[in-house]
Amino acid sequence: MNVLDALEWRYATKKFDADKKLPVEKIDTLKSAFNLTATSFGLQPVRLLVIGNQKIKEELVQHSFNQQQVADASHLLVFAVETDIDEKYIQSYFDRVKDIRQTPDEVLKPFRDYLETSVKTMETGIKKEWIAKQAYIAMGNLLTVCAVEQIDACPMEGFVNAEYDRVLGLEAKGLTSVLAMPVGYRAQDDMFAGFKKVRKQVEESILEI
Amino acid sequence: MNVLDALEWRYATKKFDADKKLPVEKIDTLKSAFNLTATSFGLQPVRLLVIGNQKIKEELVQHSFNQQQVADASHLLVFAVETDIDEKYIQSYFDRVKDIRQTPDEVLKPFRDYLETSVKTMETGIKKEWIAKQAYIAMGNLLTVCAVEQIDACPMEGFVNAEYDRVLGLEAKGLTSVLAMPVGYRAQDDMFAGFKKVRKQVEESILEI
Repeated sequence: MNVLDALEWRYATKKFDADKKLPVEKIDTLKSAFNLTATSFGLQPVRLLVIGNQKIKEELVQHSFNQQQVADASHLLVFAVETDIDEKYIQSYFDRVKDIRQTPDEVLKPFRDYLETSVKTMETGIKKEWIAKQAYIAMGNLLTVCAVEQIDACPMEGFVNAEYDRVLGLEAKGLTSVLAMPVGYRAQDDMFAGFKKVRKQVEESILEI
Repeated sequence: MNVLDALEWRYATKKFDADKKLPVEKIDTLKSAFNLTATSFGLQPVRLLVIGNQKIKEELVQHSFNQQQVADASHLLVFAVETDIDEKYIQSYFDRVKDIRQTPDEVLKPFRDYLETSVKTMETGIKKEWIAKQAYIAMGNLLTVCAVEQIDACPMEGFVNAEYDRVLGLEAKGLTSVLAMPVGYRAQDDMFAGFKKVRKQVEESILEI
């Protein structure tokens, strides 16, 4: 199946087959693909929670406007982000660059100075939104990877973030939830699977210059 | 090439082969893939500008912190979003749903009422950020599609949005630029192509529950 057929095949799955679990190789693919997501400056401020625990998935339904797919999907993915990117976080990024690429400090210095000043002078609200946006890139990536791998998924912005954070103990980890995505296999009777995809005409979505 | 190999192959291409243009079939794939991106409620507030015009690409370099890939890439993609989602926009969405799915008004009414109230009561700043985030999903999708299609790309947040808007005449179209992405083929001497990818360990990026 080519990538366009895969994207046509996918849809926001509302009813999952609760008995069909994703094999561990599929979960591993999603984990590796997530970790390869491009992020601003490569800072990777996004963490992926892979929730297979049935009790926790069920507890989160009430904080997801009672959307049952959160419990019925094989796994619930939650995209959480760092609550802040501070000097220490930047330090750990450059440690990683040095470790992986053996780049000398003097080569990294201009970029490092620029990055440190940027995050220090960024207004808190703008910084939080900038960090949160990186989770959307990761979800955009994983939605396409799911399609290519024939994994069903339901991208979700709508849930009570504070309750997710509480149930998952994210605050203590310096994280906060941004997006959620149940993944697994569609139920054979999910009526949404048969609906025609609603999209603008390509000519309406694109401007060629 | 499987999807993980494709994601390993991709990198933020800094130097493109200015003589190698993307064939029209590849551009068509990107356009269709973009139009299939999932967006919040399916509202598709993101427009893709596909810029092949060399003069315009060159004019945008100065508004992109002089990053030459903007001019040298085969095409520059710009992800722009609606400056507002108002009642008229919501109306056109439901017209499309009715047109494609023949859903009766009375079935759509609860969702429609909910959506109209949501966008009417949403604080302007929050609404603008919510709309902008949809562009990040689209970029996340297209980055992966590019990788699968062996198209090189450079995702960019850093450019002067107001100048892009002016050069591209976006304000008159009710749009504003959010992200840019030169696409094409890497130059054989792009030193970044040989660099090891800097990523956290998967175990550090993922929390299993």
